[in-house]
Amino acid sequence: MAISLINDYNYGAHPQVLQRLVDTNMIAEPGYGNDSFTQAATQKIRQWAHCPQAHVTFVSGGTQTNQLVIDLLLQAYEGVIATTSAHIAWHEAGAIEFTGHKVITLPEHDGKLLASDVRQYLHEFELEDTHEHMVQPGMLYITQPTELGTLYTLEELEELSALAHDFRLPLFVDGARLGYALQSPACDVTPADLARLSDVFYIGGTKMGALCGEAIVFTRPELVPRHLLTRIKQHGALLAKGRLCSVQFDALFSQMPDVYGGESQTGGVLYDQIGTHADNLAVRLHDILTAKGYRFLNESVTNQQFVIVSAHVVEQFKQVVDAGVWEHRDDGSQVLRLVTCWATRTEDIESLEEKLPSVRG
Amino acid sequence: MAISLINDYNYGAHPQVLQRLVDTNMIAEPGYGNDSFTQAATQKIRQWAHCPQAHVTFVSGGTQTNQLVIDLLLQAYEGVIATTSAHIAWHEAGAIEFTGHKVITLPEHDGKLLASDVRQYLHEFELEDTHEHMVQPGMLYITQPTELGTLYTLEELEELSALAHDFRLPLFVDGARLGYALQSPACDVTPADLARLSDVFYIGGTKMGALCGEAIVFTRPELVPRHLLTRIKQHGALLAKGRLCSVQFDALFSQMPDVYGGESQTGGVLYDQIGTHADNLAVRLHDILTAKGYRFLNESVTNQQFVIVSAHVVEQFKQVVDAGVWEHRDDGSQVLRLVTCWATRTEDIESLEEKLPSVRG
Amino acid sequence: MAISLINDYNYGAHPQVLQRLVDTNMIAEPGYGNDSFTQAATQKIRQWAHCPQAHVTFVSGGTQTNQLVIDLLLQAYEGVIATTSAHIAWHEAGAIEFTGHKVITLPEHDGKLLASDVRQYLHEFELEDTHEHMVQPGMLYITQPTELGTLYTLEELEELSALAHDFRLPLFVDGARLGYALQSPACDVTPADLARLSDVFYIGGTKMGALCGEAIVFTRPELVPRHLLTRIKQHGALLAKGRLCSVQFDALFSQMPDVYGGESQTGGVLYDQIGTHADNLAVRLHDILTAKGYRFLNESVTNQQFVIVSAHVVEQFKQVVDAGVWEHRDDGSQVLRLVTCWATRTEDIESLEEKLPSVRG
Amino acid sequence: MAISLINDYNYGAHPQVLQRLVDTNMIAEPGYGNDSFTQAATQKIRQWAHCPQAHVTFVSGGTQTNQLVIDLLLQAYEGVIATTSAHIAWHEAGAIEFTGHKVITLPEHDGKLLASDVRQYLHEFELEDTHEHMVQPGMLYITQPTELGTLYTLEELEELSALAHDFRLPLFVDGARLGYALQSPACDVTPADLARLSDVFYIGGTKMGALCGEAIVFTRPELVPRHLLTRIKQHGALLAKGRLCSVQFDALFSQMPDVYGGESQTGGVLYDQIGTHADNLAVRLHDILTAKGYRFLNESVTNQQFVIVSAHVVEQFKQVVDAGVWEHRDDGSQVLRLVTCWATRTEDIESLEEKLPSVRG
Repeated sequence: MAISLINDYNYGAHPQVLQRLVDTNMIAEPGYGNDSFTQAATQKIRQWAHCPQAHVTFVSGGTQTNQLVIDLLLQAYEGVIATTSAHIAWHEAGAIEFTGHKVITLPEHDGKLLASDVRQYLHEFELEDTHEHMVQPGMLYITQPTELGTLYTLEELEELSALAHDFRLPLFVDGARLGYALQSPACDVTPADLARLSDVFYIGGTKMGALCGEAIVFTRPELVPRHLLTRIKQHGALLAKGRLCSVQFDALFSQMPDVYGGESQTGGVLYDQIGTHADNLAVRLHDILTAKGYRFLNESVTNQQFVIVSAHVVEQFKQVVDAGVWEHRDDGSQVLRLVTCWATRTEDIESLEEKLPSVRG
Repeated sequence: MAISLINDYNYGAHPQVLQRLVDTNMIAEPGYGNDSFTQAATQKIRQWAHCPQAHVTFVSGGTQTNQLVIDLLLQAYEGVIATTSAHIAWHEAGAIEFTGHKVITLPEHDGKLLASDVRQYLHEFELEDTHEHMVQPGMLYITQPTELGTLYTLEELEELSALAHDFRLPLFVDGARLGYALQSPACDVTPADLARLSDVFYIGGTKMGALCGEAIVFTRPELVPRHLLTRIKQHGALLAKGRLCSVQFDALFSQMPDVYGGESQTGGVLYDQIGTHADNLAVRLHDILTAKGYRFLNESVTNQQFVIVSAHVVEQFKQVVDAGVWEHRDDGSQVLRLVTCWATRTEDIESLEEKLPSVRG
Repeated sequence: MAISLINDYNYGAHPQVLQRLVDTNMIAEPGYGNDSFTQAATQKIRQWAHCPQAHVTFVSGGTQTNQLVIDLLLQAYEGVIATTSAHIAWHEAGAIEFTGHKVITLPEHDGKLLASDVRQYLHEFELEDTHEHMVQPGMLYITQPTELGTLYTLEELEELSALAHDFRLPLFVDGARLGYALQSPACDVTPADLARLSDVFYIGGTKMGALCGEAIVFTRPELVPRHLLTRIKQHGALLAKGRLCSVQFDALFSQMPDVYGGESQTGGVLYDQIGTHADNLAVRLHDILTAKGYRFLNESVTNQQFVIVSAHVVEQFKQVVDAGVWEHRDDGSQVLRLVTCWATRTEDIESLEEKLPSVRG
Repeated sequence: MAISLINDYNYGAHPQVLQRLVDTNMIAEPGYGNDSFTQAATQKIRQWAHCPQAHVTFVSGGTQTNQLVIDLLLQAYEGVIATTSAHIAWHEAGAIEFTGHKVITLPEHDGKLLASDVRQYLHEFELEDTHEHMVQPGMLYITQPTELGTLYTLEELEELSALAHDFRLPLFVDGARLGYALQSPACDVTPADLARLSDVFYIGGTKMGALCGEAIVFTRPELVPRHLLTRIKQHGALLAKGRLCSVQFDALFSQMPDVYGGESQTGGVLYDQIGTHADNLAVRLHDILTAKGYRFLNESVTNQQFVIVSAHVVEQFKQVVDAGVWEHRDDGSQVLRLVTCWATRTEDIESLEEKLPSVRG
């Protein structure tokens, strides 16, 4: 049977997350986020992000999170600035426009939004005589890691943050796969950096070992929208059993001994261990494929690897690995997206050394 | 410690539901509702409702379901008809209006919408010279059981269904607590009746033992909205791990031996057993309170009981039972809502015979 | 030919208004409200309303005005409080809900919203434990005169204004027929009172002799929405030739000699003269009908009169007067709405004394 | 005083249009588009466009028209395809997104949308595995003439129409300046072509000599949205005095003798005469400027000319002509937009031969 590297949401939950749901199942708790797990998970996330003043809210999915944060922080006449390759620009089924807001797109550079492009756009906007006839820029949206698995450096993030601050625009970081970014050997951004430099970010759970759930972190109390619960409910996003998400995040941000057997001496919070595990396997996967002569679409340094597989071996490749087709090329080759996650087994990745065809010479 | 009868979403999941999540956890499945559990749960629900052509979709919560179904089945210029006491009319934070639709309210009778009121409204609407200047009626919305725990009889449902058919309006039944209706000894409506008489209904999971999840059942294929997945995602309601809901519904609609120890000889699907269990305890609760001299707000025949507790015993009462205040009355008495559910223990209800104060003359 | 009393928008423009359009036609002016007529009209309205700080904006129609003002002054999670008989509650085709806001309805008393009802509603809302699950009240909406031609007294307006102030809710007065209210002999409210007691009101032009146009008056500068032009355009309500409305309002609020020949010795602004003319004719119409034995639906004191005409004379009546049917009654009688306006001719009203059938015993 | 060529909406109405308003002023007519002028204007437009089955509706402005047509013809899950330079993509203050729809942008070629680009986009969309997660393409939007004054040829229009037909997408032509396109000597498209090849188009009045008003023409009855009046009102776009627009269009599409004194022997409908007049003057303006050595941004063949004026003469130029700055260039030169219209006087254009500085070698 093929090894499933098709995405990072094809299994259930990390066993430690599931166990926490089992352990807490028969404790009676208030609904709608007033449960004690929400308080506990909030506290753990504040510590992890070195952000004691953070306001944390849990909702069930990523599209919902993007729609909510953008709609709640924008004024009605404002749009959100993002790259053309941003998830919200093309792959959210219009969920942002559904709430009345335009996604203002700027060019992408290796999947990223550059401060220089934003600065130029904002300057030209201000110079434009008729800018009152246009959608006002209201927020910067970036993803860490990007859709292409690339990373913003600390320097890039600092530039964007300073720019956002200059123009009084909030900086929102979509962290659907945040753990796979932060634990990458190539990443020089810490959770504390993220909390310091962004106005709001979210910590993805669904792709990091939870059954569902994303943690929205408002890093500045004055930006927490008024009547937040009412607005979440108005969006259809309020869960009666708020505990479903908070219990899982409480587990994800608990200190645990090494859960992957030997990868770490010291343990750490489960969320970080999951990131490390998947990123290590992605590096190993990259090395195996490189040794076999494969080339890549880009230099992704996180859990998504985009490998170019030529026409004559692609079927053979897919019999070994269950992967998604990112791009069909005219020469018959395909770009396959290979995704490691919390559930990927080390032995499966190692077995690829033998199973996958070589394309060398 | 007080016995928690405060609502039906204060615990985790029914153990059999949780066990199914554990059992299926490490099976790799496609995302976004393309998993095999969705197919299995759909098949089981079709059988349960004697509705082989039903289209079933799972989303995470009740407000979300109401918002989705109403927005997807209405044209932009249409509103939904409901009673003034309907959940969507006052307690959904404006989630219906958020998508552009008016809730057209008619008087409630014991929590119910009467066909005669609707017929009169629709006739007057048609006679109105300027009705093109008004929101067009586009759907009937009812709840089974109602917010007040009361039930539509089969006859009432047939009248509403015939009326809806006459005026070509879909009839939508909100079943957030559907299992507590169908298993009530006072209920003469079967799942097959519901599927036959409504155009769309939903089967509540959150209040019936799931961690989250509601099953939307379109009973007529021609009413299934086009590009359903796109629209669910546009609403922010599409879960990457669709399996989270479908696994739970697969468990809820599986045949099981008697899970409550002696309540049933024959077992049945878990969803029905949960309904029976909670309704039996509600009847027993009603009997105990009646014997002690308490009066009730109305004749609820389902899992919610609205008991009137006079000022001099209300504090004593609340020390025994953790309950929500439905109404503060001028004489200092309170109407308390007592809710049984899948998690309520028989021995806790029985203990109330001793623990609760008598108010008998 | 029947005399047309069917509504107050069935003719073109008051001749003086049209003349102003002709006179200014070939003056080149900037678009989008930056024309000199907008400044002139604003200045005249400020003087008329004794409100030097007022911000005035012109848009083309009444539904548009209600939609705009309500959407711009409400937060996303807020609704607007109005009576069940308010125009926005039933006769705006859902234009308020279209922008996401609920119309929260309270009972009407002679067409009016009572401060006591609002106060009770707001107190109960605050006491409600779960009010965060409900639409937040965000504005009071009233109409002067009401849909039924009745008037708020100064005392009633002061009560509503004080209440609105206490709860920090803006008070919005829909003045689609404002001139017919202010000039009524029964009216004890002045333009200055209106400006002092409301936060925003609009002066209807369409029904007061303009081809189109309503003047929105923000009485408190701090309530003027940010990026007002952008939002008006976003609503599709920004006219390129803003002059179209402003020229007409400049005429309507210009001092003129008596334009109706003998009704006034002193003249005054055209808007007031139009109101006086129509109201005088409405009084005369009421007197003629009363003398002939007719009864009325209510005691309207403005330009709309609701007369009850029994079955046996209704066809004869309608051959004399072209009027709208307000209500069909079971006994075959009809309530007819008779509307005077700027275009109604005194001799036509006088002729009714002879032409209309008597119903006197 | 400078000659005003700043835009085509800086004067009132064409005298013949205004005269018609004066002539019809005291005729009583029903409101909301049920007036006899609407029927007459509709009939004239049908004849002009050789489209007897056309459904014609009048609204007051261009942004409103674009918002309405796009929202009414799209399903909720659909977006509209346009070029990056399209008015709706950047200069409508987000009015399209306000109603929930994404503007899907493709590259512009001389201001135009190419069928080949659209075809490629649609093919790639269909091939995309995850296209259900994306906004569905639902309409093609083009402008004739474009924002840059350029024209679609008949061949280009036929290609786009065939493509739209193949993919069952309506083709919508924004004709805010339609008359200036159709009368251009470079235009090979007739009104009949436009009606035959588009599904809906609008005839701009505001920029063609009306005080306000655009005529929306549905060329295929089956595409007329249900409850059209209700939806127009829901958008806030329904005028009580619908006659305001219809009277003006009745004048614009009336046969008249030559109104510009010698330009035409035969007369024709006023709308065409206005177009011819302004285009003739634009050609003359272009010739004068070319003779003086000026270069142009592009080869506009309609009433907007984009002339490049170098730094050392730009102030002198602007003292002669009041024009808008389209672009500030780094070398200090400016692209000025010069606009002729129905109100531009021949003698003013001729006078430029003397007044404007030469930039010839």
